[in-house]
Amino acid sequence: MKDDQCIFCKIANGEIPSRTIYEDEHFRVILDNGPATDGHALVLPKDHYRDLFEMPEDLAAQAMKTAKKTAELLKEKLHADGLNLVQNNGEVAGQTVPHFHIHLIPRYKNDGQTIAWNATHPDDAQLDAVLDKVTK
Amino acid sequence: MKDDQCIFCKIANGEIPSRTIYEDEHFRVILDNGPATDGHALVLPKDHYRDLFEMPEDLAAQAMKTAKKTAELLKEKLHADGLNLVQNNGEVAGQTVPHFHIHLIPRYKNDGQTIAWNATHPDDAQLDAVLDKVTK
Repeated sequence: MKDDQCIFCKIANGEIPSRTIYEDEHFRVILDNGPATDGHALVLPKDHYRDLFEMPEDLAAQAMKTAKKTAELLKEKLHADGLNLVQNNGEVAGQTVPHFHIHLIPRYKNDGQTIAWNATHPDDAQLDAVLDKVTK
Repeated sequence: MKDDQCIFCKIANGEIPSRTIYEDEHFRVILDNGPATDGHALVLPKDHYRDLFEMPEDLAAQAMKTAKKTAELLKEKLHADGLNLVQNNGEVAGQTVPHFHIHLIPRYKNDGQTIAWNATHPDDAQLDAVLDKVTK
């Protein structure tokens, strides 16, 4: 199903042109127009799912296969030194377009980017309390 | 195959105790001891693969299914408002342990974390040049 209001639906289905590096029945992989680094790509399903929670399990698995293939292509062709795979869910997580997508960000020495977080230092009792909440 | 020197091999295979939230034949999912937020989890394959490039395609797909299930569990049990999935490859990309892992970082309003990058603004010719390199 497409969402008529969704820009990534239009891009994934070719209604809006994009710099496409891969396409099959279920996915289009494009270059991001505002990239973190050279080769920053987005894996877009052609059907509309808001996020990982909405994606069918098998399609999420297939998205990962497509991401792996694309990552290999980017690494080889652009001589990347590494790569971040990032998939954000929800505005609070920095998701700007509510259509599932995987960011593939090739990394190069001294590329000036830092994709990270601040580690916190809970004690054992605090970690155990989280474990209890998740598993009980 | 395990790597005798690898701490994530030992954790994934139960030789070092961990706060495990899920386990099956191929994966163990644990709570990160230095979490970005409450419920920050790691999906670890039991066999040793350095990164996404080394992971067999089918196992990478299965890792994504495991990540999706775990993400749903974390969201439900911890009432998260969103979630970042991050998978780093290479020291330059912030990978600190050279054993494939997926970070699942539940996000909460005002949790104080920002997982992002600085967008660059290449012109059309620059983007076209990258597309050429990748696709030719």
